[in-house]
Amino acid sequence: MIYDLIIIGGGPAGYLAAERAAHGGLKVLLFEKRNVGGVCLNEGCIPTKTFLYSAKLADGASHGNKYGVYADGVKVKHDEVVARKNKVVKTLTGGIRSQLKALGVEIVEAVAHIEKKNAEGYNVSAEGNVYTAKRLLIAAGSEAIVPPIEGVREQYAAGFCMTNREILDMTEVPEKLVVIGGGVIGLEMASYFNSIGSKVTIVEMLNKIGGNIDAEIAKILQKNYEKKGIIFNLGCKVTAVRPGAVEFERDGKKESVEADRVLLSIGRRAASKDLGLENLGIVMDRANVVTDERLQTNMPGVYACGDINGKIMLAHTAYREAEVAVNNMLGIRDRMSYNAIPGVIYTNPEVAYVGESEESAKAKGIDVVAKTVSMRYAGRYVAENEGGDGIIKIVVDKKWNKLIGVHMIANYASEIIYGCVTMIEKGLTIDEIKKVVFPHPTVSEALREAIFML
Amino acid sequence: MIYDLIIIGGGPAGYLAAERAAHGGLKVLLFEKRNVGGVCLNEGCIPTKTFLYSAKLADGASHGNKYGVYADGVKVKHDEVVARKNKVVKTLTGGIRSQLKALGVEIVEAVAHIEKKNAEGYNVSAEGNVYTAKRLLIAAGSEAIVPPIEGVREQYAAGFCMTNREILDMTEVPEKLVVIGGGVIGLEMASYFNSIGSKVTIVEMLNKIGGNIDAEIAKILQKNYEKKGIIFNLGCKVTAVRPGAVEFERDGKKESVEADRVLLSIGRRAASKDLGLENLGIVMDRANVVTDERLQTNMPGVYACGDINGKIMLAHTAYREAEVAVNNMLGIRDRMSYNAIPGVIYTNPEVAYVGESEESAKAKGIDVVAKTVSMRYAGRYVAENEGGDGIIKIVVDKKWNKLIGVHMIANYASEIIYGCVTMIEKGLTIDEIKKVVFPHPTVSEALREAIFML
Repeated sequence: MIYDLIIIGGGPAGYLAAERAAHGGLKVLLFEKRNVGGVCLNEGCIPTKTFLYSAKLADGASHGNKYGVYADGVKVKHDEVVARKNKVVKTLTGGIRSQLKALGVEIVEAVAHIEKKNAEGYNVSAEGNVYTAKRLLIAAGSEAIVPPIEGVREQYAAGFCMTNREILDMTEVPEKLVVIGGGVIGLEMASYFNSIGSKVTIVEMLNKIGGNIDAEIAKILQKNYEKKGIIFNLGCKVTAVRPGAVEFERDGKKESVEADRVLLSIGRRAASKDLGLENLGIVMDRANVVTDERLQTNMPGVYACGDINGKIMLAHTAYREAEVAVNNMLGIRDRMSYNAIPGVIYTNPEVAYVGESEESAKAKGIDVVAKTVSMRYAGRYVAENEGGDGIIKIVVDKKWNKLIGVHMIANYASEIIYGCVTMIEKGLTIDEIKKVVFPHPTVSEALREAIFML
Repeated sequence: MIYDLIIIGGGPAGYLAAERAAHGGLKVLLFEKRNVGGVCLNEGCIPTKTFLYSAKLADGASHGNKYGVYADGVKVKHDEVVARKNKVVKTLTGGIRSQLKALGVEIVEAVAHIEKKNAEGYNVSAEGNVYTAKRLLIAAGSEAIVPPIEGVREQYAAGFCMTNREILDMTEVPEKLVVIGGGVIGLEMASYFNSIGSKVTIVEMLNKIGGNIDAEIAKILQKNYEKKGIIFNLGCKVTAVRPGAVEFERDGKKESVEADRVLLSIGRRAASKDLGLENLGIVMDRANVVTDERLQTNMPGVYACGDINGKIMLAHTAYREAEVAVNNMLGIRDRMSYNAIPGVIYTNPEVAYVGESEESAKAKGIDVVAKTVSMRYAGRYVAENEGGDGIIKIVVDKKWNKLIGVHMIANYASEIIYGCVTMIEKGLTIDEIKKVVFPHPTVSEALREAIFML
């Protein structure tokens, strides 16, 4: 039989594309080599959020005195948190599985390999069988980078050094945790283990945490973490990982920090090796599959969505890309826009942002005005955050008087940001936003305050 | 001296209008008889949110076991919560005061009385002085209804029976609290006192709680409260309040419930008496000042914003009305729209809604399709809500394929709803909303799920 679509990879891009394509009437075959749901559901977004919610409850209980709430002996039983995480993951992956089944998507749990194009379509082999489809969607995701630093590979093999995958299944609580890399994953795990009692040290090569978040917000976030006891070594290059310690260089001088466990979170790389992409002559940019605004590769009918194209490695980018790709397969006009993709850090406090920063806008030659406002202008923020130092920063295109960027640090930012995405994606002007009635009292009102203070 | 604008009432409508008008160059005089900030800041929105945040922390600490978080002896010190509430209120009202001062708004703390119109404008008297302005803004707000039920007036005078004002300053915790009226204020206070240990009973005349919230959501909310131990007597008419008890009728039969304190929360009425409105011949609809879409009364240059016009008694309605009124004073075209005013109940779980319900849309002759989706389709909801039964309901205008209503019960709903307001206010189509990239994993994604399941 010839499928309408073969999908390689059952993560956010793959399973959503499978659902939408099957819903649109295509006969779909999905290959997944590990677990349906991908990194996001099994060892990323969802597991970390169960961890962080438990940490938030514990933080609330421990520091409730400021709010008149007292509790003794607050304790997080980490093994129970891990067990609950597994239950949540099982529930959600089970949901996706039954959804795919209900839609008639065939799932093959095996490593797939692209063989060749022939008159009937594309051949993909797995465990000795060959499958053929008119179209291919490559959604093989990404993998944590394990850097060629002295001792890392050995210590990773020995279990002393972990990636996001291993740390989420670790049931003991390390007394001393060293996190290499102060990006989103590193910060979220640092925040959790700090909340449950580990002594956490972050070693980051750059002089700033949080990857590409706003520099001022990164500083506020770091200050909040430092108050909680997390130690930061910024501008420090790790030179070796040895049993019990991580060695690094600061300004050319060697230093070392003790560790019971080490988390490697320096970034991710598209998992494009061994897929057989070269058999189709797919154009690559280093490890990334090159795609156009319809998510098509250089081969007609071959699409690539999610982390594999290396554009913005986030589950929700993958979702939208999958929709665009499937719409194009179904003959529905649709193009991918990367202008309003939100980013979130789910620590306590949360960080969320979308669109341009002042710097990125200026680099593009956009004439902007930016406004930074304390979150304390929002009554609910004051009610819920004793001594809170959150801010919101908005970036406005002066020529069109349109909102083009929003950056926040405050709890609920994660849930507020999609409204900013909507405003930016739809190109709302400041005057239009002024007419939106924000519920009072909410933290979201800080956006309104910033708009009116322009 | 002749002012450009006299404002009677320093609540959300009054202080915001004063700020905007002064910013726009008008010479403004503001009368406030009690406290700047009005009911909202002093004895409404903000105080209740400080209470409810403490309750949420306590709930989290007490019921953390499901999330692997353990704490002993969780206790809320209610007097500390009240003291903190006072501090928060002081901070926020202080902020408004200095903002008004910085803008050159004159504040007179006195009861104002409208005298007459003359050639120069409108005369308003206070404490023996007479002030004149070219324009008037009536923003005197509303007051809690104290119903003519046997014993209520006496027990209110005796302090046994309270309104929102008194209960927010009460420092003891009643063992048995009876709440008359299951609307938003009643529910929020019931929820708080339940969380800190009171035995709470609600007596409501209607067969449904939550005022005009969606009926299905009202049932889910009630079920959640019942699980926590709140007792509901719906369809019950209070016949008398006596020391130690509230008497009511259920299906014509008399019943009684013991009470240490009673909260009266059956509704609010525009505070339009004794303002001197009759001196200008202002057209009224019962206690409400009648206004047009520019918030003008029947007298040119006399506006009425906020609870006093009785349209939608919410602080954020007042804000927007104040902006519309001031824009019209300044010659800026602006009209009030009541199509997308959100409503929120800040209990645990939260309820939020905006726009049409299926019933209200049908009553207006709009051909709609509605879709109800479990919040469990949002991964973060599953991660943070063990056994959660939240839903989201969307209402779509079939003819234009536009979103016209959203109703939610789930935590974060309060912060999510403004995005739905934006979509409805701007008239976004379902196809446009499909292109909005919602961050993953968030509770806000439930909206996206509902949109795609239409």
